[in-house]
Amino acid sequence: MTNENHFRFSTTLEVRWRDVDALGHVNNAVYLTYLEQARVHYLRELGLVTGGPDDIGMILAEVTCTYHSPLEMAEQVTTWIRVAELRNSSFIFEYRMEGEDGRLAATARSVQVCYDYETGHSVPIPARWRETVTAYEPALGGGE
Amino acid sequence: MTNENHFRFSTTLEVRWRDVDALGHVNNAVYLTYLEQARVHYLRELGLVTGGPDDIGMILAEVTCTYHSPLEMAEQVTTWIRVAELRNSSFIFEYRMEGEDGRLAATARSVQVCYDYETGHSVPIPARWRETVTAYEPALGGGE
Amino acid sequence: MTNENHFRFSTTLEVRWRDVDALGHVNNAVYLTYLEQARVHYLRELGLVTGGPDDIGMILAEVTCTYHSPLEMAEQVTTWIRVAELRNSSFIFEYRMEGEDGRLAATARSVQVCYDYETGHSVPIPARWRETVTAYEPALGGGE
Amino acid sequence: MTNENHFRFSTTLEVRWRDVDALGHVNNAVYLTYLEQARVHYLRELGLVTGGPDDIGMILAEVTCTYHSPLEMAEQVTTWIRVAELRNSSFIFEYRMEGEDGRLAATARSVQVCYDYETGHSVPIPARWRETVTAYEPALGGGE
Repeated sequence: MTNENHFRFSTTLEVRWRDVDALGHVNNAVYLTYLEQARVHYLRELGLVTGGPDDIGMILAEVTCTYHSPLEMAEQVTTWIRVAELRNSSFIFEYRMEGEDGRLAATARSVQVCYDYETGHSVPIPARWRETVTAYEPALGGGE
Repeated sequence: MTNENHFRFSTTLEVRWRDVDALGHVNNAVYLTYLEQARVHYLRELGLVTGGPDDIGMILAEVTCTYHSPLEMAEQVTTWIRVAELRNSSFIFEYRMEGEDGRLAATARSVQVCYDYETGHSVPIPARWRETVTAYEPALGGGE
Repeated sequence: MTNENHFRFSTTLEVRWRDVDALGHVNNAVYLTYLEQARVHYLRELGLVTGGPDDIGMILAEVTCTYHSPLEMAEQVTTWIRVAELRNSSFIFEYRMEGEDGRLAATARSVQVCYDYETGHSVPIPARWRETVTAYEPALGGGE
Repeated sequence: MTNENHFRFSTTLEVRWRDVDALGHVNNAVYLTYLEQARVHYLRELGLVTGGPDDIGMILAEVTCTYHSPLEMAEQVTTWIRVAELRNSSFIFEYRMEGEDGRLAATARSVQVCYDYETGHSVPIPARWRETVTAYEPALGGGE
């Protein structure tokens, strides 16, 4: 169900020429764009959103990215993503980014807070989200 | 010499229309571009580099960004930066990003490793760097 | 009132490290971001918009950019902009982009169409816009 | 061999969340990044380059992009590209960008100049390039 790092889901994209900076590798900020793409696809895969991030009532509170090896022009980059922890009103994504040859390019972790834009306050994770994610992520106690 | 957070140096830039995403605020990945600009200016201010990041033999190993408040289109954003720790072959930058009204927008921390591109290995922080940074950063024991 | 190329208005920005691509110069697509910044500032200067491009009912229909010389990391880039022609429901911006030393970096031209998002159709240029722009641009018959 | 617009070659990419601006559509500058990706893939397909644009001795002199319809988040965008004209030291690319449903999103045209970075002057199109492109592009008199 999952790979050896407990990830079930991944998304792959191609490094664009524009992603590369003057040092000849993918710029450090662009890794966060790759993580963002992984989040968008994961949330869509689980049916938690219909359009883009704007309808999910979710705020990115923190991200840590550890760079392990440079990514090259035109590489196919695969980003594994999973929910590693569900708290009351926030949850944790973990990521593993791999180059085309499978080498580790980066690991990352982000904190998201569920948010009600109307009231301007954080809110508990919706029950439907909690159930869906728990059922999907075996390491959270659900699985298939 | 420093502000209340021990920062002596800051750089200010304007939020571009392109920095803003579909949610109407500066995209999370763009914060890392702002941090990068702060690094470039800091290193130039201290005379540690002449051109761009490519002549400094420095690799970004990890970055953590904590998002405190959204940045708006056309805001003037000020990023404070300081070297918070000098290790053997790596050092730590700390950052404080403020919106135009002085509110806290983000805090961040990054780890850089000194690197010899010819041998492909990390190297100790050059003595000149260590002296220059220690003299510049009062919290490291130097100061003016 | 205007420089020798009939421009009254310009805006200056700094090349960011992220703007530069693997060839060591500002990437071609980023020039369009600089043009966009010039539009945003011009429209605000003339009081035609209050916030960002989203409240102006204006669609970019075409842009041509001619590249004259590369822009380098950390350069201060000045983009001159003027309305060169007012048609019925569209108008033309012309641009002249200069490097820090005053050399010509690019010239450009873009076509904008006034648009009613509610009806989904193009609309004539609002009378207030026409008057304001004509009064501001001497080459259009107005001037001070 | 070609579609009705005389294009033999296309490349497809996915709109990233980061490509979209505050108006909810792909930002105008990002279209040039899509065109750039099409150039990179075309040049590689024809064996004219081995790595990225940096080894091709080619300078982008001008680009015109005509915007026909907005591109949405997560769309698969196909960019058709062909060499439309070979001059002495420059050549013309034409492009047709289509949304996921096949609708026309943009048309574009760019001028490239062959360039010797060592001497700093433009040079005639290399004979091998001329032969390869002529053989590939039926509208240029070659074809299969």
